[in-house]
Amino acid sequence: MHASASPRSAVVAAALELFQSQGFEQTSVEQIAKAAGVSRSTFFRQFGGKEDVVFADHEVLLERLRDFLAEGHDDPWEAVCAASESVYSYFADDPDLARRRYQIVRRVPALRDREIVTVFRYERLFDEYLRRSLPGIDPLDAVGFAALVTAVHNHVLRQLLRGRKKVPLSTLQTALLDVRRRYGVLEEETAQSSDDVVVAVFPRSMPIAEITRRLRTRLD
Amino acid sequence: MHASASPRSAVVAAALELFQSQGFEQTSVEQIAKAAGVSRSTFFRQFGGKEDVVFADHEVLLERLRDFLAEGHDDPWEAVCAASESVYSYFADDPDLARRRYQIVRRVPALRDREIVTVFRYERLFDEYLRRSLPGIDPLDAVGFAALVTAVHNHVLRQLLRGRKKVPLSTLQTALLDVRRRYGVLEEETAQSSDDVVVAVFPRSMPIAEITRRLRTRLD
Repeated sequence: MHASASPRSAVVAAALELFQSQGFEQTSVEQIAKAAGVSRSTFFRQFGGKEDVVFADHEVLLERLRDFLAEGHDDPWEAVCAASESVYSYFADDPDLARRRYQIVRRVPALRDREIVTVFRYERLFDEYLRRSLPGIDPLDAVGFAALVTAVHNHVLRQLLRGRKKVPLSTLQTALLDVRRRYGVLEEETAQSSDDVVVAVFPRSMPIAEITRRLRTRLD
Repeated sequence: MHASASPRSAVVAAALELFQSQGFEQTSVEQIAKAAGVSRSTFFRQFGGKEDVVFADHEVLLERLRDFLAEGHDDPWEAVCAASESVYSYFADDPDLARRRYQIVRRVPALRDREIVTVFRYERLFDEYLRRSLPGIDPLDAVGFAALVTAVHNHVLRQLLRGRKKVPLSTLQTALLDVRRRYGVLEEETAQSSDDVVVAVFPRSMPIAEITRRLRTRLD
């Protein structure tokens, strides 16, 4: 989905252009509204303030991820990675807009702080989803996996935002496969069964909750 | 080191007591200064504002970790974990003060956000240290390890801060050994378990709950 597809996104694009050309602090809501061709009251109906314009996409994305994760997925670990990849694709779809936003955020300490807080919302969403989908999971595994996926995601995204060169989605995908490997939830366990005996092979590092989930799926 | 060892810490303790009893917003700098027996100007020489009092310990701790990491260590991965453990010990030394702070932060959204930003400073410190100590390291490994250690640390610390029960340092240490294991940087481990694969054999008729229980007993 292209970022300027909705009128709301048009306001975002106009605001980011002004923030970049004349500075975040120096730009007034009036100027943004005028540039976007909306009234001041429309602006305030859509956004709480100037800061919210910068992070508007994250609200949309978080809501979208919440819906996606709620759909139910066979492999919750894979679903978290797929969610991360969809966020990456969203920004990679319009890298110029994403880079403009990144440049603005970098220059304003309050925006940098808010970005850190925003990133943490993804981490918490993933954490909560894993705990919900894998009852009995060791919370440390949920917390750790969520943090690792989020950190890896942000690192790869930052490469895209900093440079002029393309950073393909596959870079992130490879890194996320590695995260799943570290948690022992990538390799398919080889469960061979005769009539009355089940042999299950899995990495030692795989969380018990995940072993249970896979066994249940196979045996049911 | 006990938190109330310095006059600066006495101001922190007095402030936290007021924040807890009458609320963060409702407490003035004048009240804090009076309760701590210092002048208003002394307060402002020591702290930028009310918020800074709440996070004062982190400034001290971050500085201390910077020094500790700069000492040079044979095993940088272990050093990051040792740094995390020293922070934990600092708070566990005076759990009542730490819990009071936690209760105050939880109630004020601006403080919660600032806490997230503060936590990120540890993560970045660890990340930068790993990159410095291990030239040629894949930045993804530095970023990921730093994020995982920080997330695990915070989860265990939160258990300490939320409950009344003791959460010993060994809980964190065990969790951090697991982090190093996931990154394959726990040397002792290779000697102990040559195989990182578990093979389980059980009757098909065995209930999943019993399989889980047995696996848990075996693997713990």
